[in-house]
Amino acid sequence: MYTGSLAMQTDFYQITMAAAYHAHGMAGQATFSLFAHALPPQRGFMVAAGLEEALDYLESFAFAPEDIDYLAGLGRFDPGFLRVLADTRFSGQVRALPEGSICFAEEPILEVTAPIMEAQLVETFLINVINLHSTLASKAARCLLAAQGRSLVDFSLRRTQGIEAGMAAARSSALVGFQGTSNLAAARLHGINPVGTMAHSFVEAFGDELASFRAFARTFPDHTVILVDTYDSVAGLHQAVKVAGELMAQGHRLVGVRLDSGDLVGLSRQARTILDQAGLEQARVVVSGSLDETRIAEMLQKGAQVDLFAVGTKMGSSADAPFLDLAYKLVSYDNRPTLKLSTGKESWAGAKQVWRRLEQGGRLDHDLLGLSQEDQGGQPLLEPVMRGGRRLGPAAGWRQAQQRFREHLAQLPPAILRLTEHAPARVEISPALQKLQESIRRATLQRQSAERL
Amino acid sequence: MYTGSLAMQTDFYQITMAAAYHAHGMAGQATFSLFAHALPPQRGFMVAAGLEEALDYLESFAFAPEDIDYLAGLGRFDPGFLRVLADTRFSGQVRALPEGSICFAEEPILEVTAPIMEAQLVETFLINVINLHSTLASKAARCLLAAQGRSLVDFSLRRTQGIEAGMAAARSSALVGFQGTSNLAAARLHGINPVGTMAHSFVEAFGDELASFRAFARTFPDHTVILVDTYDSVAGLHQAVKVAGELMAQGHRLVGVRLDSGDLVGLSRQARTILDQAGLEQARVVVSGSLDETRIAEMLQKGAQVDLFAVGTKMGSSADAPFLDLAYKLVSYDNRPTLKLSTGKESWAGAKQVWRRLEQGGRLDHDLLGLSQEDQGGQPLLEPVMRGGRRLGPAAGWRQAQQRFREHLAQLPPAILRLTEHAPARVEISPALQKLQESIRRATLQRQSAERL
Repeated sequence: MYTGSLAMQTDFYQITMAAAYHAHGMAGQATFSLFAHALPPQRGFMVAAGLEEALDYLESFAFAPEDIDYLAGLGRFDPGFLRVLADTRFSGQVRALPEGSICFAEEPILEVTAPIMEAQLVETFLINVINLHSTLASKAARCLLAAQGRSLVDFSLRRTQGIEAGMAAARSSALVGFQGTSNLAAARLHGINPVGTMAHSFVEAFGDELASFRAFARTFPDHTVILVDTYDSVAGLHQAVKVAGELMAQGHRLVGVRLDSGDLVGLSRQARTILDQAGLEQARVVVSGSLDETRIAEMLQKGAQVDLFAVGTKMGSSADAPFLDLAYKLVSYDNRPTLKLSTGKESWAGAKQVWRRLEQGGRLDHDLLGLSQEDQGGQPLLEPVMRGGRRLGPAAGWRQAQQRFREHLAQLPPAILRLTEHAPARVEISPALQKLQESIRRATLQRQSAERL
Repeated sequence: MYTGSLAMQTDFYQITMAAAYHAHGMAGQATFSLFAHALPPQRGFMVAAGLEEALDYLESFAFAPEDIDYLAGLGRFDPGFLRVLADTRFSGQVRALPEGSICFAEEPILEVTAPIMEAQLVETFLINVINLHSTLASKAARCLLAAQGRSLVDFSLRRTQGIEAGMAAARSSALVGFQGTSNLAAARLHGINPVGTMAHSFVEAFGDELASFRAFARTFPDHTVILVDTYDSVAGLHQAVKVAGELMAQGHRLVGVRLDSGDLVGLSRQARTILDQAGLEQARVVVSGSLDETRIAEMLQKGAQVDLFAVGTKMGSSADAPFLDLAYKLVSYDNRPTLKLSTGKESWAGAKQVWRRLEQGGRLDHDLLGLSQEDQGGQPLLEPVMRGGRRLGPAAGWRQAQQRFREHLAQLPPAILRLTEHAPARVEISPALQKLQESIRRATLQRQSAERL
């Protein structure tokens, strides 16, 4: 685990560029825009998340003396520059989508305005943290949609890409509406409901399945979910019913049974029947094992009877789309709008705003992407969140983000929410932005061809 | 960023099981085996990594007083158990594949033997850290193979799943032979060569491309790689040649040019020609932009002229296979071998060893998976690395792991190394293991059906 200064969590070229900016007196204000060039093909929307960690990072941005010593030891940097770097803090402003906002390709998730050296140094971390949380929140949102109102919990920690990703998976999934996490550290840090009871090893250690179930129920008479598939799921279900009867005789209730392998659709129906026939209507059927939105949707479509889906690895690593194509592009320097014309990666010039425009019924009609100083109708989505390197309000937790997410989700037409073959959301470009883009583009190309002569 | 105790980085069920073990006096020695059930279909082998971080974790395993307070606050745990938990340290032993070892499905990467509560509590973190590093090292190894001797560097930090994953990507890629990383923190922590020069924003901030190239070259006359594609790659290449001439006149050399978009195959050939015609044979052609092993192999097959591949997101998130199907299975409790019979997930009983058996020419013939106490021919791969909760030797760095990786790589037949449609490695099961498995299986099924009566 890295425990050094977070300022070092950057690409080396941020330092070499900073040195060159310093050497050439380039200290103008720069605005960078962080957005997704495109969404993964199967995704109709993304959930913006990670902002609070990004703001924590910006507020505490500083190199440690030993970082500066390391850089000095590379023998490439001027001591004057290293003194400036040692004193550098983030002094800029940030406008951003609050966490939980639903957005689309090309729409800024955040915009940073600061002296160019500062704005550049923070690029790598900002992309990383927004990518991590937004990727996982977007994936968890799809699982939520697939479950059609049934409960979900996060079981992903063991196979996320690191424990930091595990923490993000727990928070992101709580943000969209998961009801608990197996991740104990995340449960504690974020006040999420901790969930989980027993593993196969517990059953195996006892050797005798019934003895293991009884032992667990004795220790946790009010919190027992029995894992029934260690040897044979149907046999396990019948043993669970025995234990439930014993619990009931003592005034307790079996919380549920968990299925983790085999034909989960068929077994879930059998489990429901066996439990109901034993008068255990309140006992929940929990399923786990390689679940994701596709599998959940398919199971429900085939008639699975599930009360709670425990979703792990594929959600926690966003396995079908493990990253978002996020970029952090310079859109203005020293009051001059800028763009990039690289093949297939052209970016829109200028600081921006997004206005969400709803139909009469409250459903999304389209978003308008325009310049930040325009005065347009609709709800402006980017809000000022930091000025002079300081937050403008207290840090928001996942519960607050969940409200925003639910509000935005309710506005989306079902066609955009479809898990496969979704309709694209309409994002229009304001005439002022189009005009600016054309003029900057023309001027850049002219300058380029003049230089070539 | 989570900065609490790592012991809390566990699934809640590890605590509930520990409580039940405690309540029922189950304190026998348990052996758990960590292995991949199967490899991703396109992968012929995996590279074991993450062991050193796993051992760091085990050596420092402890709950903090505030963790215990949190658990007490949940109102489910007996105070006597919580006192035991507060005093719990890892006192067990570990046998493992040294980092950099190449292994296959079903082969243990590590085995933990400890009192069952301890061995169980560390499960989640151990799977997580071995999964993270092994997933990324295995992906980086494929990129290395695709590059056929050309240099590679890691550019992945901005889109890894968190900065912890970024640190692992830098170390794992150095481990298999990458020659540098853009990740400054990883470069410093692990002594990897830091690489990177300029981004598109640098060019845009100057507005004038030539002016930006000149400015960078003035600040770093001996370390300039020019990014040529901000507006037009071919025009950019010609500007780079101008700057190279100016550098040469002052006794310096342009290190190279970087292509980041467009037809990278065609542009790399044009770049080589333009550079060579200007007498810049030593200048390197660097390419970046959505690279992975598939793209690298395809580019080289089409005749790309590249000296260095800068590999980012798809390597750093192992995008095509973002996790390994790792499990941590109880294979023995209190000197009794155990197994699980769950549909499709049956595990092999007993503590194990893997013997690598080579042909005459030094190439892999097959691996033999057997019981740890067997005496078999071939090189035993699992080594004792921890006893009594303490490492048996100093922590090994990535350079040492690289030696092991190269040695194992040289033993693999080309058919197993193929990037697509690889041949499967042969892993045989020893007669003693087969016999044990059969007898445990039979006994377990008999006990199960007896219970059902």
